[in-house]
Amino acid sequence: MPRHYADRLTRLRRAIKEAGVEALLITNANDIRYLTPFSGEDSYAIVTSRQFVLISDSRFAEEIEPLGAWLDIALRRGPIADKVGEVEGDLKIARLGVQAEYVTLATRRALAKAVGARKIVETSGLLSQLRVIKDEVELGLIRKAIRCQQQALEATLADLKIGQSEAEIAARLEYEMKQRGAEGSAFGTNVSARANSSKPHYRPSRRAKLTRGGTLLIDWGAKVEGYCSDMTRAWGVGAMPKKIQAIYPIVLEAQLAAIDAICGGALCREVDAAARRIIDGAGCGEYYGHGLGHGIGLDIHEAPSMSPRSGDNDRLKPGMVVTVEPGIYLPGVGGVRIEDDVLVTDKGCRVLSNWPKSPESATVL
Amino acid sequence: MPRHYADRLTRLRRAIKEAGVEALLITNANDIRYLTPFSGEDSYAIVTSRQFVLISDSRFAEEIEPLGAWLDIALRRGPIADKVGEVEGDLKIARLGVQAEYVTLATRRALAKAVGARKIVETSGLLSQLRVIKDEVELGLIRKAIRCQQQALEATLADLKIGQSEAEIAARLEYEMKQRGAEGSAFGTNVSARANSSKPHYRPSRRAKLTRGGTLLIDWGAKVEGYCSDMTRAWGVGAMPKKIQAIYPIVLEAQLAAIDAICGGALCREVDAAARRIIDGAGCGEYYGHGLGHGIGLDIHEAPSMSPRSGDNDRLKPGMVVTVEPGIYLPGVGGVRIEDDVLVTDKGCRVLSNWPKSPESATVL
Repeated sequence: MPRHYADRLTRLRRAIKEAGVEALLITNANDIRYLTPFSGEDSYAIVTSRQFVLISDSRFAEEIEPLGAWLDIALRRGPIADKVGEVEGDLKIARLGVQAEYVTLATRRALAKAVGARKIVETSGLLSQLRVIKDEVELGLIRKAIRCQQQALEATLADLKIGQSEAEIAARLEYEMKQRGAEGSAFGTNVSARANSSKPHYRPSRRAKLTRGGTLLIDWGAKVEGYCSDMTRAWGVGAMPKKIQAIYPIVLEAQLAAIDAICGGALCREVDAAARRIIDGAGCGEYYGHGLGHGIGLDIHEAPSMSPRSGDNDRLKPGMVVTVEPGIYLPGVGGVRIEDDVLVTDKGCRVLSNWPKSPESATVL
Repeated sequence: MPRHYADRLTRLRRAIKEAGVEALLITNANDIRYLTPFSGEDSYAIVTSRQFVLISDSRFAEEIEPLGAWLDIALRRGPIADKVGEVEGDLKIARLGVQAEYVTLATRRALAKAVGARKIVETSGLLSQLRVIKDEVELGLIRKAIRCQQQALEATLADLKIGQSEAEIAARLEYEMKQRGAEGSAFGTNVSARANSSKPHYRPSRRAKLTRGGTLLIDWGAKVEGYCSDMTRAWGVGAMPKKIQAIYPIVLEAQLAAIDAICGGALCREVDAAARRIIDGAGCGEYYGHGLGHGIGLDIHEAPSMSPRSGDNDRLKPGMVVTVEPGIYLPGVGGVRIEDDVLVTDKGCRVLSNWPKSPESATVL
């Protein structure tokens, strides 16, 4: 078993023991991908202090086979819960932890039938508490994803033309990422032109086109070997509209202030506040309705979340990778959001993405 | 409210009443998209006999605003479960149905705290039983998605070259679909060259390239306004390898036999058997490890499922749209799968996709 998987498994076994269960049933695909190179659907894993069993089906048999060297493979023909019952019986597990964040009421019902309701114990966050700190292999992949998305942006902007539709630009950007080794986009690419940029979760349209003197906002990310990156930039097309010119430096200042506030031990709420203070101070508080940022990794949204609602114990730790993405959105006019990916270190942080973001650089065409 | 949404809501209200609850909390995004044009994340809906409330947050405020004409909008600032508690209190709901297939143990816990555990009633399939029968608007979108994916294939094959990588071909195909109005691929496009085609859930690689005399299998689909299409074709590159030539007609015969067996009222298990009988009869049964097909719609995998494990009551109904996709996979050699999308009618079915599939047509370059 490759070293990094072995390390993760050791840490998980410790967490399982601390949670007071004998075994953990892993039903979340990305948690399985954290522990193995496997990423197929409809598959579960069971981890005990000694065993590691992957439950899958014949569609994945050929792909999984090499993993047989370091884990047990159980191929099912019937419902997955029944196979869990079988494996659990073989391993003589008395208390089987399940993941409360992922197991649905329907799945629990099926498991209770197959395993026995009394054996099932709800656990919470056993894997996410490990995944929140990235190891070297993970950091390497996140860096790769960032490189990939930045190179893809470069290729896309080089071909940008007045009259191109948002959907066309998004399709091209995703194509360029895949051409550079991404298995896909980390999320639905958001390209918004003109006033559409005031909707933080807009979907690109074929009807909305790039016009001179409008704005262009792109929120995009790559997924490389499972790992996500996530950035946003906003530009004026030709020139930046006056009202956007006015908010751009505020968003940038807010973003830089937040990055400055990041270090191991910092309260997430306070990092959020560092940016919010500047936007509020400029009288734009009502136009900034979301949190500052979130962790990235195998999921595009992971812990920690940095927002005014972050709790008293929500602190950044060295090894976390988070987005920093304040924005100001003027309905009917347009919006600016500037987002980078940041690695938390002991004393500060390292900004992993490096696409220009000064007001001078924020023009295309 | 547009007519088709009103009809769906009426049918849902009937189902809610029959389930013996006063209201349904809808937590599944695609179920919300079935009832409204809205498709944002982290949003819930509550439907009672009179009210229809969409719970979302400020990121989606501008997008949702026009919907205010036909439903109530509740924007939350705090946790979503708390907002559910608030709305439920305002509406004086005594029994709140939740969706057992989508609500996790963690969400149920939060809801129990906000709403009161005794008010929560597990329901199952209230929306999926409606969604399984497609209305005219849905059929129109599925047809659009199929047209889009077929035109994208045409453009991609026109540019096919020896030496192109699987990843390159997949990226191009997805680009061409988006250029033609798809909001994205319906699922991760599977392009597999040579022996990789024996893995039904393979992911395209940048290292694996198209070679003369090898095989090429493409499983791809478009997503248009939320609706998915899903097809597979396999070809010989230049010429078809001998072993693939031998299995291709068997797969095709199996697919045609299954299509022949489809009609309103047919047992899913028997439609599956119609194809399986032919593959078994040709001595290839052990190389066909998955079910025959599945429903498509807002989800890429919906009810019904057609497999040997389909139940005694699992029957096709007019208005269902299903994939028909038998395959034979020879490990280390390659595989063939032929997949079309089929609308079930009273007396038979209509095959919605129409890309050629005769053995004569199954060569590229």
